[in-house]
Amino acid sequence: MTKAEWNQSVVSREEHRQQKRDAVLQVGAKLFNDRGYENTTLDDIALELNISKRTIYYYVQNKEDILFECIRGSLEFMQGVAKELADGEGSVVERINLLTSQYMIHISTDIGACIVLTQLASLSESRRDEIRKSMSLLDNLLADLVRQGIDEGIIKPIPSRMITAAIFGAINWTARWNRNSAVTDQAELAGVFSGIFLDGILTTKSAS
Amino acid sequence: MTKAEWNQSVVSREEHRQQKRDAVLQVGAKLFNDRGYENTTLDDIALELNISKRTIYYYVQNKEDILFECIRGSLEFMQGVAKELADGEGSVVERINLLTSQYMIHISTDIGACIVLTQLASLSESRRDEIRKSMSLLDNLLADLVRQGIDEGIIKPIPSRMITAAIFGAINWTARWNRNSAVTDQAELAGVFSGIFLDGILTTKSAS
Repeated sequence: MTKAEWNQSVVSREEHRQQKRDAVLQVGAKLFNDRGYENTTLDDIALELNISKRTIYYYVQNKEDILFECIRGSLEFMQGVAKELADGEGSVVERINLLTSQYMIHISTDIGACIVLTQLASLSESRRDEIRKSMSLLDNLLADLVRQGIDEGIIKPIPSRMITAAIFGAINWTARWNRNSAVTDQAELAGVFSGIFLDGILTTKSAS
Repeated sequence: MTKAEWNQSVVSREEHRQQKRDAVLQVGAKLFNDRGYENTTLDDIALELNISKRTIYYYVQNKEDILFECIRGSLEFMQGVAKELADGEGSVVERINLLTSQYMIHISTDIGACIVLTQLASLSESRRDEIRKSMSLLDNLLADLVRQGIDEGIIKPIPSRMITAAIFGAINWTARWNRNSAVTDQAELAGVFSGIFLDGILTTKSAS
């Protein structure tokens, strides 16, 4: 990021601050994902943003603060999906598709990938709990949908936690090899994965 | 590990050394997986083995040496699977099952999980290449089998790399949550995953 980019798009004072803070989070997340959380310093982030470390402290208190904000971003995203599912209509298959495809897109962003790529061992116990809580939100939602599908006779009677582990495993791993659609378009990949998952768990072949 | 365990089962001098070296690798791998490679020191490993750091240097040169030996163990495992597939008979489905179920068991061990859980960013470029080479060996084998299945008309005409990414993603992720069968028996899980994967990619439902 150049100095000019950092200084541009000034709106209100508060909006201005918010935008710069977002830039710190964005670049922090990217470096955590590229180099590992342990191998990234606030100096690295300041250097990448072309600002001083002192300026960074105006937006965040420390490195863990950046990570925590990224995790909070993921939690908000997941709460949004949960609300959309609670408010909306649609068959079990449609709802599984909505959940997995949205998660797949989220996880391919730098902010989203943090939750998957950061080694939990590097974090304090309370931060670790935050990540686990965030993860289990979608996990529980998908498990509920799977159990509903089993009750309806459209999904094979497999332990629901094994199904969610297979699906989230495949999705989470994409954060390692296809972040920011580095190899293939993540939205297209989401469609292909969806076809594999659904035929894999449905009692009859899906329409796809 | 107690001092008594460390000293027991002495055979020949060379065998003795080999066994103690294996114990260093085993404990090293476990700590890397539990705490992260960056967060583990040779002191931690010595403490866990109840030996001095000086004794550790008799078996390995440094921390990266331990990780490298674990990676080499995985590479040997993968070469073994490759040989078994090359020498053996069996349908495409049977061979895919052989490859994935064996890999799934391997990845649930501490030595096997290292290759998946270690952040590549923590390693030197040459070590990183070793891991990639090792990973791509099985990846290429599975992709070949998938393409053969597509040619035979039994597997859906999906880009083979998307199929291997889905399958290996789901398997690799188990190293995060089910190492040493912590949650559920990994061999049983391998059977369930196999049923999901196969129905997910075959043009007709599998016999399972």
